[in-house]
Parts: sequence; structure tokens; C-alpha cells
Amino acid sequence: MAVTVAELAAQLGARVEGDAESLLQGVATLSQAGPGQLSFLANKKYQHQLATTTATAVLVSESEAADCPVTAMVVDDPYLSYAKAVAYLYPEQREPGGIHPRAFVDESASVDPSAWIAANVVVEAGAQIGCGVQIAAGCVVGRNVTIAADSRLHANVTLYADVQLGQRCLVHSGTVIGSDGFGFANEKGKWIKIQQLGRVIVGDDVEIGANCAIDSGAIDDTVIEEGVKMDNLIQIAHNVRVGAHTIMAGHSGIAGSSVVGKYCAIAGAAGIGGHLEICDNVTITAMSMVIKSISKPGVYSSGIPAEENREWNKRVARISRLDKLNDRVRQLEKKL
Amino acid sequence: MAVTVAELAAQLGARVEGDAESLLQGVATLSQAGPGQLSFLANKKYQHQLATTTATAVLVSESEAADCPVTAMVVDDPYLSYAKAVAYLYPEQREPGGIHPRAFVDESASVDPSAWIAANVVVEAGAQIGCGVQIAAGCVVGRNVTIAADSRLHANVTLYADVQLGQRCLVHSGTVIGSDGFGFANEKGKWIKIQQLGRVIVGDDVEIGANCAIDSGAIDDTVIEEGVKMDNLIQIAHNVRVGAHTIMAGHSGIAGSSVVGKYCAIAGAAGIGGHLEICDNVTITAMSMVIKSISKPGVYSSGIPAEENREWNKRVARISRLDKLNDRVRQLEKKL
Amino acid sequence: MAVTVAELAAQLGARVEGDAESLLQGVATLSQAGPGQLSFLANKKYQHQLATTTATAVLVSESEAADCPVTAMVVDDPYLSYAKAVAYLYPEQREPGGIHPRAFVDESASVDPSAWIAANVVVEAGAQIGCGVQIAAGCVVGRNVTIAADSRLHANVTLYADVQLGQRCLVHSGTVIGSDGFGFANEKGKWIKIQQLGRVIVGDDVEIGANCAIDSGAIDDTVIEEGVKMDNLIQIAHNVRVGAHTIMAGHSGIAGSSVVGKYCAIAGAAGIGGHLEICDNVTITAMSMVIKSISKPGVYSSGIPAEENREWNKRVARISRLDKLNDRVRQLEKKL
Repeated sequence: MAVTVAELAAQLGARVEGDAESLLQGVATLSQAGPGQLSFLANKKYQHQLATTTATAVLVSESEAADCPVTAMVVDDPYLSYAKAVAYLYPEQREPGGIHPRAFVDESASVDPSAWIAANVVVEAGAQIGCGVQIAAGCVVGRNVTIAADSRLHANVTLYADVQLGQRCLVHSGTVIGSDGFGFANEKGKWIKIQQLGRVIVGDDVEIGANCAIDSGAIDDTVIEEGVKMDNLIQIAHNVRVGAHTIMAGHSGIAGSSVVGKYCAIAGAAGIGGHLEICDNVTITAMSMVIKSISKPGVYSSGIPAEENREWNKRVARISRLDKLNDRVRQLEKKL
Repeated sequence: MAVTVAELAAQLGARVEGDAESLLQGVATLSQAGPGQLSFLANKKYQHQLATTTATAVLVSESEAADCPVTAMVVDDPYLSYAKAVAYLYPEQREPGGIHPRAFVDESASVDPSAWIAANVVVEAGAQIGCGVQIAAGCVVGRNVTIAADSRLHANVTLYADVQLGQRCLVHSGTVIGSDGFGFANEKGKWIKIQQLGRVIVGDDVEIGANCAIDSGAIDDTVIEEGVKMDNLIQIAHNVRVGAHTIMAGHSGIAGSSVVGKYCAIAGAAGIGGHLEICDNVTITAMSMVIKSISKPGVYSSGIPAEENREWNKRVARISRLDKLNDRVRQLEKKL
Repeated sequence: MAVTVAELAAQLGARVEGDAESLLQGVATLSQAGPGQLSFLANKKYQHQLATTTATAVLVSESEAADCPVTAMVVDDPYLSYAKAVAYLYPEQREPGGIHPRAFVDESASVDPSAWIAANVVVEAGAQIGCGVQIAAGCVVGRNVTIAADSRLHANVTLYADVQLGQRCLVHSGTVIGSDGFGFANEKGKWIKIQQLGRVIVGDDVEIGANCAIDSGAIDDTVIEEGVKMDNLIQIAHNVRVGAHTIMAGHSGIAGSSVVGKYCAIAGAAGIGGHLEICDNVTITAMSMVIKSISKPGVYSSGIPAEENREWNKRVARISRLDKLNDRVRQLEKKL
């Protein structure tokens, strides 16, 4: 697909400085881009690459426009415009509607004719698959699952019974939604399973990465609100609620019954304990452990940056001797 | 399914205060429950909800019975009784025995007639599937795997060759049991694979969450003893032994050849190093790192609670200057 | 398979002290080995077991040869020789070439006649499967994927479109390669997806454990160089490059665009932040968080060993009062 700079600029609301008639066929980084390619400058770190780029056009902000050696497409937010440009230049390839002969769809399930069900998919009884839904090979869609319009499951996704998925969701391979919440009562040392009765409700425009696990609620539902974006290998326990437009990075997790607000950002491998409330607009930095509710927007941390092992071992030893150091200071205070 | 309070009370050994003939059809939380629903009070946090509940009956302990505005079912441990009540009110739905025409079962495998093999399951040569076993869609059961009576695999589980699963086990979707242990010898910088010859042996009544990975042993076997309960995304390395009735939360992991005792609790994202021995009745709190054996029952920790990032950054800086602080105190001591 | 000590010794370049004609049929640990079994002594921890072993032969280093009560096979590196002995005694069982009737291979895909495609595998359009490749049940091989000679996918692996896998790779079950990188631009609080255009390129002799997730690049490719070995549940974000012969343990992860050098070792649950460069020959110890580039080979850490919870809570409290302690020392210094 080739478009003129002018056509793309119209889509993006960009001002063009240079040749509006040149053709764009794809995108590349500033350092790699050649003729016919669009690039963008969104990170100051790469500013030095602008002078020598051989891209046909570059998405830049107003302040960089003068320094652009090729056609500049001036926008407010080059990164956002890049996202939209890519969506325009690389329209998603959707399969035509239909059920692959190697798929198995229970006769009581309802599949919109415009939905696509790939080979080796299993759709169980009572499931409802909306228009434009795309279900790739090897997925298992449990009983009475609902998948709303234009959502897409990549290969080998598992949805347990009763999961509800909103519109335009994207779920990556290996992810499991609706597995039993982790609930047991103890009887003389043995663990007695507590049947998990709730569902998982996923809002519109949610993206869930690969190999995540989202448990069903114990009694009420686990809820992922609209616009949430999750990276890979994320754990969501039973009865968690993740607020709209919150973003979670890889290996992060939320323990049971915690409620995370809207517009939060949970960085990689951060963990949020159970039965907590995290208000809107909270950022948790990488590998932090949250064990108290947070009622004030802001940035919270407990991750420790690595340093040379020899130095680090000294620090750990010092920390373990803090009691003694404190005692020594107290002794000094007494003497004075 | 509807039962009278009296019938359920007989099952649970509960004393009824109120209307023993009222009908129960399901459960709900204290705040959500309405007519026909059973609730329970197990956590002091929710005690204030008892006074206004509109549940038909509530499982309470002796000390709460007087405050219960509706029919009270008095028991020693309301949470445990809730577990049993749910199991009674919501009997697990088991498929009738049979092999789905879209499943593939090797002719040398043995499948009990009461076992259910769903669509797109593959059962490889020599596997033995016991009575009442339920294998959901997309599972792959490797060569010579044994699955004992009444165990259940949710969709898309993978069992490598020679895995042995006990009775009444429950394995959630995406979990892999029997993948190669991570063993390599180094030859001039290159890693030479050490063929992993052991198996994974899983005892009776084990539950394993979604997207876990349990490796086979290098020479001897990896062993998960009876009654162990594992949450999602857990890593068990080769030759680990997890003792009976130990419970592990999401994202936790145990490195190679470590032995964890019985009745332990490993909280979320905690890690246990390799070649360690952890005795019975040990609790590891969230995000802790265990790198020494533990021979004394108790609670062990190294996770640090998150706080506001600005404060946290100061702490990290202070920690990195602990050497200097120590020196200053020593100087002061000398001067005095 | 039975071989004489002499035959195996010739394979390994071992010097035999004892009966070179005795037969070996398998391996076992020093304490478990009996007649017909080979063992090895590679870890001083097990040295005391040598005196009483009933193995038929033991791989030992020169310094242990005199203490070996049975036939000694003297080698430079017993662990490496063990790896090679196992490979010789337990030759990998490969399926004969062919496509299982229950597999679905798109007619535009190319599958070498010597490759094996198991039941319920899906191979999509344009994929190229090289000679000797083994693809186990339930795998999904996306469009235009290339799998080079003798690579092996265990059951239920997912390769997204355009992934390239080198020769002799081994990928364990549940692993996902090529899922979308986690890239979003923000528009008034909502996250706008950035279409991920890059691929994942995996070099020769790479092993990837179970339930890992390796994302495709945003524009350029994500690259796993030759000889890399990854354990289970590992997260590799978009545009990461992992250098040749680097080894990564379970639950570790690398954030977007970071470049890790060759011959590195990333221990369990360690995390490497985004946009970093880690030079060759770096070791990151368990549960460490790397947030700065590393340009000097060595060992780096920030993991804290667990201790008794009561003690640990005191330390955390002390750390949070470090500011005050510092102030007190300053006061003392002023007074003096």
C-alpha cells in the first residue's frame, strides 16, 4: 500500500513542510529508513539521527521541524501520530468470516457469519461469537462465553466457561482467562477447595499479552475495565478489578480482591497484595511490592537497583547490622 | 438445585437458629445476598455487613450467632463450612465418559470408559487414563503418562512423556508438566545440553493453576506431594520436591533440587534458590528471596513495602551511603 | 542400549582405570547407581558418596581417580563428560517424517519430507519447515514462519507469523514466540496501539523453556542469538537482543530494546529494564533489578536474602528511619 505524504497528513492532521506528493510505502527507524519510508522522532535520545536520515518523510514536533533534512510532517505528538500512521499504512489483515472445517463448534453455540473460527478451535455449548470476531487456531472457548464484536484471539488462547469479552479486545497466545481463583479453606492441615463461582468480565478495547492468567471470581466477578493494556505473563487473581485505561507490564501481578484504579501504570514484575485499594493515577515502578492501599495519586517504589555484587554484599551486611549501628549512635548520644 | 437449611446443616454439622425449612439455592456475599441465598461471615472486616444482610441464612461462628438478623447456621469455622456448602450446592459438572470424535487417542493408550476425552485432545502411545478422568479440549497427554482416577485437566494442558498424576488432581489451562529441566554443561563457552531423564510425579489431590511450568528431573524425579495447591505462573525446576499440603501463590518459584517441607506457604513472587532444604511449616512472605536452607519453622521475609518514590529514592541513596555513615560513627567513637 | 566402558570412553576421550569391558546401560546418581549404571562426580558436595557407590563406572577427574572404588573413567570435566555420555546412552527418539492425518498444513506451506508434523498441529500459509524438524501436537506455526533443520517444538507451542527459528532449536510447551510487542501511544488518557511490524529471529542451537513469551519487534526485529538457553516463564520484550550463549533462568525478563551481551548469565526472576546495554560476560544474580547499562563484565546484584520475619521487619523499619539516624550522627558531629 502506497500513499502520498499529503494523504497521510490529512489523516493525521499534520502540516507538511517539503514534498507533499512523495509516496510512502512503509515505516522504519530514523537510522534505517530509506526512500519510500516514513520515520518519526519522539525520543530526544535519537535526535542526532535526524540530520542524516534518508527517510522520505519524518513525523516531528514543531520544535524539530526546522532541523528535518527531508519532508517534515509536523504534529503535536509524533509518537501518537506514528501509531496512527502505522495503523493507516498497515491495515490489519482480517480473515473472511467462516468456520474452518477442522474447527469444532458446538451446535448450541452462536457464531456470527462474519466471524472467523480457525482450524482446531473448539467453541463449546452456548458460546456467543460476535460479528467480525477472529479466533485463531487452537483456541478453546468455553461454555456460555461471550465475545463481542471485532475482538480477536491469537492462537492457543483458553477462555473458561462464562467469560465475557468486550468489543475490539485482543488476546495473545497462551493466555488463560477464567481459571479458578486460588481459594482454599484449611481443615486440620489439609486444603479444601472453595468452588469458584464468579466470572471474568473484560471490557472493550482491552489488550492482554501472551501467557497471562486471569482468574475467575470466588463469588462476584473479576473485572478488567475498558482500555486496559496488559503485557505478557501477568497474574490477575480472583475478584480483582483493574480500572479503565490502566497499563501493566510483564510479570506483574495483583493478588485477590484488590481494586486498582483508572489510568494507573504497573511496571514490570511489580506485585500488588490482596484486599487493597489503589486509587486512580498511581504508578508503581518495577519490582515494587505494594502491601498497603494507596489513596494518593503518585509514583510508588520499592525496587532496588543492582550494583556490583561485592558492593551489594557489603550493603546487605550493613543493613543487617543497622541495629548495632543504631545502638552505637545511642551510646554516643548518651555519652555526650 | 435447592435444599433446605436443615438439609445443608446436616451436611455441615451446623446448628440452626431460625427457620430450618427455608430453601437455599445458591451463595452470595453478605452485602449482595438476597432471598434463597446463603452467605458466610469469616473475616472480621465484613462483620458490619451482618446486621443488614438480606441473605436467607448465614454461616457464622458461635460468637456471631446472636447478632445474625436472619437464620444462623452456627459452625466452628464458617470459611471451611462455606467451602463445603458450595461443594454441596454447586456439584461439579462432569462430562459423561467417552472420547470425542475430534480427539486423537493412540491405539496403545488405555482410556477408562468412564473417562472423558474432549475435542482436539491428543493422547499418545502407552498413556493410561483412569476412571472418571476429565480431559478438556486441546490437552496433549504424552507417551506413557498415567492419570489416576477422577483427575481433571482443563483445556490446553500439556503433560510430557512419563508424567504421573495422582487421583483427584486438578490442572488448569496452559500448564506444562514434564518439560526438560534446565541443565547444561559448559564447553569452551558453549552450553551442552544434559538430557533430562527423570519424570514428574504428582500426588493425589494436587491443584495446579494456569500457565505453570514443572520440569522433569535430571536423573531422579521431580515430586509434588499430595494435597499441594499451586496458583498460576509458578516455576518448579528439576528435582524439586514440594511437601504435602504446601501452598504456593502466583509467580513463585523453586530452583533446582530444592526440597520444600510439608504444610509450608510460599507467597506471591517469592523465590527459593537451588539445592536448599526448607523444613515443614515454613511461611515465605511475598517477593522474598530464600538462598539458605531453613531448618526452623516460622515466617521468613525479604520483601520491601513500596512507598512514595521520592522517599524511596532517598532510602536507596541512604543505603548506598551506609558505609560512610558507619565510618562517621566510628570516627565519633574514636573522638570520644 | 548397552555399551562397554571402553566404547563410551573412546567417545568421551576418557582414561579407564578398571574393567573396560563391563557393560553400561544407563546412568544414575552416585548414591542410587547399581550394576550396569554409570555415575559421575562433579560436585564436591557429593564426594563422600564416591566411596560407597555401587555404580559400574564413575566419571571422575584426575584428582578423584584414586578414590574411586569401582571402574573410573577419568576426564577433565566430569559434568561435561556426563552430558555427552547421556547423549550417547540415550539417543533422542525422533519420529519418522510425515504429516499426521489430524494435522492441518496449508497447501502453500512447505514441509520437508523428513519433518514430522503431529496431530492437531496447524501450519499456516507460506511456512517453511526444514528437514528433520519435529513439531509436536497442538503447535500453531503462523504464516511465513521458517523453521530450520532439526529444530523441535514440543506440544502446544505458538509461533506467530514471520518468526524465524534456526537449526537444532528446542522450544518447550506453551511458549509463545512473536506476540505483539507492548507498544502504545497515549491520547488523552487512552492507549492507542502501535502496530508491531518486526519479527523474532532465533539463531541456531537455542533452547527456550516452557511458557515463555518472546515479543516481536516494533519496527526492527527481536533477536535471540545462537546458543542462548532460556528456562521457563521468561519474558523477552520487543526489540531485545540476547547475545550468543547467554543463559537465562526462570521468571527472568528483559524489557524493550535492551541489548544483552554474549556469555551472560541472568539468574532467576532477575529483571533488566528497557533501553539498556549489558556487555558480554555479565552475571546478574537472582531477583536483581538492572536499571542502568553495564559496561564492565562482572557480577551484579540487588536481591536481598530472606531472614526471620520479625528480624526482617525491624530492618525495614530501620531502613525507613535511616534519615533520622543520619541526622542524629550529624548532630553528634556538630557537638564534637
